[in-house]
This record gives sequence, C-alpha cells and structure tokens, in this order.
Amino acid sequence: MFQLIGIALNNTLDDRLKEYAAVAKAMNVDAVALVPGPNFTRVVIHPFMSHERPFMLVVPARGRPAALVPNLELRSWDLVGFDGAVFDWRDQDGYDAAFAALLKNLQIGTLAVEGQVMRVFVHHALLRAQPELKIIDAEREISALRMVKTPDDIDALKAAIVISERALERTLASVRLGQTEKEIEQSLIQNLFAEGAEDLSFDPIVAAGDGSARPHAKARNDYAVSAGDALLLDFGARKHGFAADITRTVVLDHATDEVEEVYDTVLRANLKGFEVTRAGVTSHEIDDAVIGVLEASPFADRIRTKTGHGLGRDVHEAPYIVRGNHQVLPAGTVFTNEPGLYQIGNFGVRIEDDVLITEDGCASLTQFPKELTVMKC
Amino acid sequence: MFQLIGIALNNTLDDRLKEYAAVAKAMNVDAVALVPGPNFTRVVIHPFMSHERPFMLVVPARGRPAALVPNLELRSWDLVGFDGAVFDWRDQDGYDAAFAALLKNLQIGTLAVEGQVMRVFVHHALLRAQPELKIIDAEREISALRMVKTPDDIDALKAAIVISERALERTLASVRLGQTEKEIEQSLIQNLFAEGAEDLSFDPIVAAGDGSARPHAKARNDYAVSAGDALLLDFGARKHGFAADITRTVVLDHATDEVEEVYDTVLRANLKGFEVTRAGVTSHEIDDAVIGVLEASPFADRIRTKTGHGLGRDVHEAPYIVRGNHQVLPAGTVFTNEPGLYQIGNFGVRIEDDVLITEDGCASLTQFPKELTVMKC
Repeated sequence: MFQLIGIALNNTLDDRLKEYAAVAKAMNVDAVALVPGPNFTRVVIHPFMSHERPFMLVVPARGRPAALVPNLELRSWDLVGFDGAVFDWRDQDGYDAAFAALLKNLQIGTLAVEGQVMRVFVHHALLRAQPELKIIDAEREISALRMVKTPDDIDALKAAIVISERALERTLASVRLGQTEKEIEQSLIQNLFAEGAEDLSFDPIVAAGDGSARPHAKARNDYAVSAGDALLLDFGARKHGFAADITRTVVLDHATDEVEEVYDTVLRANLKGFEVTRAGVTSHEIDDAVIGVLEASPFADRIRTKTGHGLGRDVHEAPYIVRGNHQVLPAGTVFTNEPGLYQIGNFGVRIEDDVLITEDGCASLTQFPKELTVMKC
Repeated sequence: MFQLIGIALNNTLDDRLKEYAAVAKAMNVDAVALVPGPNFTRVVIHPFMSHERPFMLVVPARGRPAALVPNLELRSWDLVGFDGAVFDWRDQDGYDAAFAALLKNLQIGTLAVEGQVMRVFVHHALLRAQPELKIIDAEREISALRMVKTPDDIDALKAAIVISERALERTLASVRLGQTEKEIEQSLIQNLFAEGAEDLSFDPIVAAGDGSARPHAKARNDYAVSAGDALLLDFGARKHGFAADITRTVVLDHATDEVEEVYDTVLRANLKGFEVTRAGVTSHEIDDAVIGVLEASPFADRIRTKTGHGLGRDVHEAPYIVRGNHQVLPAGTVFTNEPGLYQIGNFGVRIEDDVLITEDGCASLTQFPKELTVMKC
C-alpha cells in the first residue's frame, strides 16, 4: 500500500523500535522521542511531514512505545502497523491534552530527543505537560543508528548519485557564455527531475566568478558567466529517501595558472582523503590529512571549510569530518569528501565526492570525472 | 550583488529590525531571537540555510542587535549590511563560546523565540550559556509581522500561483488511464520547474482512488489510475521566496452520483468561504461557515480537516483558519480555503484556493477552474 524506502524487508517495525529502546538503555534515560525527520522516517518507513502539528513517537527503554499523532494523520498512521498506544489530537482542540495523556501513559522522568530535529514548541509542550521532565539532547546517539548504511541504503544512495551525475552531464553540455547563474541553476534542476529525482537534496549552489568564492552562494539573476570563470555546482538528487551531494568546479573557456594551481591543490586534498580512509579511521584523522594538504600549499589562507559530513537520509548528518572529532568510523559509513579553497572577490574551487568506507579502504560512490575541465562553450 | 526577495526597497534592514524590537517591547521581553527560516529571510533578505550550525539574530527591545554566525557564512553575512556585533564560530571550535559571548554582550533576562522554527539544540546552547535565561515561545507574535502582505509579497505569491496553475494544466493534459500516481507526480514536478518554479512549496500530493481519501497521501509507485477515480493534486511552486498552495480534484473518465454530490458539497463549502471573508472577519467565523456547509450535508462523517492556513514565505503560517481561533483578520492577509471530504477506502475531494482579504471582501489569487471536471483520457 505504501512506498518502501531503502529498508530491508526482513527488518520489522518492532526490530527498529527495539534499536531505539537500546539507545535509551545505553544512555540510562527512560525513553527516546522521535519527531518527523530522517530518524522517524527510518522507523516508520512512511514519510510524514513536519509542519505546525506536533507528531511524536516515544520508545521507552522498557515497555510499550506510544505515539502522539495529529488526528489528520491517523489514517496514514494506520499504514505504519504500530501497535502501541496512540494519543491523537484535533486542530480544534489543540494538543496539550494529548501531551498530558501521553506522558501519563509513559510514566518517565528523562527523555532523550533529537536536538537537531525537534523544535522548541514541542519541547515546551512536553514541559507544560510535565514540568519536571528532564529533556536531553541525544541527537548524536539517536542518529548514530543511521551512520552505518545497509546494502539497501547504499543502493538508494547510488541511485540518487547516478541521477545527479547524469543531470550534471546534461547541464554542463548546455552551458553557454553569457548565461546567468540562475539560468544554469534552473537547467540543473530541470535535468535532475528529468533524470528521475524525487526531490532535491537541498537548493543547488550554482556560482561562477567571485560567487564561487562563497561556500553557500545563491545563484544570481544578474551575473552572466564569462570566459575565465570558475563555475561551481554543488547539488544532489533525492531518491528512495536518500540524498546525493556532489560538487564539481569547471572552468569556462580558459584557465589561468592561478586557477590551475588552486584546482590541483584541491584535487590533491580530495585524493588524500581517499588515501587515508578505511574502517577504523577517525573523523579527525581524515580532516587532518585533507586540510593538511591545503595548509601545506601557497593557498592556506583560502581554507574556509572542514572536509565534509555524513550523508544518507539527511544531507548533513553524522559523522562530521572535522578535526577534534575523534569518532572512529566503521565500514558502511558514507561521508562527503569536499575540500575547497575560496578567495573572496576572486574565485573558489570545491571538489566533492560521496565516499563509502569499507573494511580495507573506501570506494567513491560518485564517478563523475574530477580532472580540471576547461569547457569551450 | 544578491537576489532581492519580495521586499520593498525603501524598507531598510534597520526598519525591519525595529519591527522586531517593537515586538519585544510589546511582549515585555528583553529581546527577540530569529533563526534561519521565513522570518529570518524576511529581515536579512539573503536566504541562509539552516543545517547543523547554529545561526541567530537577536534584536533587543532597546540597544543594538547582535548576531551569532557560523564562520563559514561570514562572507555571505557581509552582504546583509548588518552593523551590530557579530559573534562567529568555527566548526573546529564548536559554538558554546560564541553563545556565551553573545549573551554577555546582550545582557538580557528574557528572550522570545520562534517555537516552530528554533530547534532544541539551539535552545539548549542558550541555556548552557545562561542557565537562568527565560526562553518564551513567541512564534505567533513574531510571525504576525508576516501576516499582512505587502504589494511586493502579493506579486511574488501571484507569480508562484501562475507557475503552479500552468504546471497543473500541462500535467492534467498528459494524464492517461493506467499511469501510476508516481508517474503523474513526476510529470507535475517537471512541469513546475519548466514553468519557472524556484523550488517546490512542499512534496506534492498526487493521490487517486482510495489514496485521495488520505489528506496527506504520498504518490504510490504501484497504483495505476483507472476510470472512475478521483485524482487529487495538492502542490505549489515557490517563486521569489513565496509559496503557492493549490488543490484540485478531477475525476477520470466518468463520475458516479456519489462523487458528483460530494464534489458539489465541497465546492459549496469553498464558495461559502469566499462569501464570508472580508477585513475584520475572524478565523473562527470563516471555518465555522465553511465547515458548517459540510456538516449540513449527508457527508458530515467525512470531515477531517479545518478550512485552511495562512500562506506566504511559509506554506503553513498564521492565521490558522480553525474554529476557536478568534483572531481578527485584516486586509492583506492571505490564507488557503481548502475544505475537503474524505471517506477511507473510498475516495476524497479537496478544493483549495489561495485567498487575499481586502477591505470590502476578498479575491481569489488562484484562477484555475473548479467546476467538476470529468477527464476523458
């Protein structure tokens, strides 16, 4: 009856709920709460939207899970196959009574929540219902269950990446000098959906010339790409609930010596990331090696970002590949390897691959060529 | 240098910051905090993404505003023209020191926040920096500044709606019996971008047959539309930062008497919404009139939703058009008028228009025909 999103079918709802009960036990808290977002979707499979209506699934360390569901969503919730207590509420009545009934049912003193997903209005509703409830931000521990990807997860990511790479190929083939960044962005978006994207992983970054020097630039209506420009495209398709995230930087018409040298430096940093990655490496070690290449170059003052971030149902998730993060990375982890160099007012270069950690090394899920491409267009 | 999004140019950053200072004064709190989202974008114009990095603008009732900015975003932040204190932080160092410095600078005891936008990890970071800080959910008061639309806002909404209606026309023209819901959804998405959408307002709902009876259904890969099906499409384009939200339900091949009667009832409820709307009406009065039509019909047991919600930079925003909400609606307010009737296992009908309240009545921003359409396809 509903769409399955990258979950092995032999893994039941009950199995998945038990994983969160185990997190609660390991953290020594009474329960874990999930709200609509990547963890929630992973558990219930059916994707629910998170709008102004509180919606929450609570998995106690021991005992039966319970849910707080907007009445409007009850018929969709039925598809989940959840057999715990359900406390629904209607727009007309508000949700305070449902929170009170939920917490009365659960009898908990401590609750671990997803700090990056749960919003303050839900936090406050919990505290109105039970002022002494201790709410703990367990984003890292809860989302850790998503870090190691299943074979189905990897297949979904690969599908999203193939769509993204085909769209990039079509988009680059149509770029002409004099087009605006916005026109190129619109072409990229149309190509992503034409290739089968279910959604965008995020609003694409299409930035040329001085725009490429801002890591999170927005495509401009009033900037026409011209000969000599670096053109940076950072984007991704979603497929089966998983998000690709790819960056390529090409050069239009001709490349100056400076562009060639900067590009070569970023590419060497990206390749170093692959060289040092294998099961058991830490985030710190990868970032240290990658950023170390940039620091040893004449362009060290153009460093503005860390190496990357985990990738899966969320486009930014654990592990964050940054110095100081000594988290050990197991096989099955997927992260972005995206070193860059950015000089404000001049240009920027970023090369981003999606990397799967394996027992004896790693594999690039992205296959798009990354040698310096000078496009005659 | 950057894209202007539906703001009158004679309205300066300083003017807009003063509006939030006035909210703080009116609420008798020391300051208002904004995090990336629709209010933040309205103030700084440049759209920033909200990911794992805290980013916050604080406007005190009196004195200079201050901001907490991820170092990565500093160059984009420069474009905003903000002249208050800026506390930046780097991934490598974490953000606790920046929160401490920000709050030390501000010297506040109470802080009003957007409860529907701010996430728990920011709430907790604020309390780590200043455990006695009183954080108040002022979503309603802060977002109220967006309720009355400016002429530029209306133009942006109209542009988003025109794109959406053209995409719907193209999509319906290509529907064939035997297509899956998913195929029709993909066609709709491609048409939205081909017509100039910058983004989707939300993941479209394309639901036929029994799927149309679930208000928030997801398009199915394994359901092929067939003769006699109701086909419900609920979707919208974003343009210039504003979100359209439209629903039309058509019938494929032929309509049964039951479908015709249900459709007629929903249409009468939708028209009643237009009849009772003018400046000074309350949300309660509109919902009471619209739902009253449904309740007086033989299909009262198929009511599952309120009349609608405000529409603007956010696809769900104040005012919520629901009984019990006695908020008086001024001219310039835009809301969705979207009555529906849903019978599980059978079918559902929803008709949704975007309505602008005027001094002496209201105007439908959506123009797509809404008489029962039986499509021969």
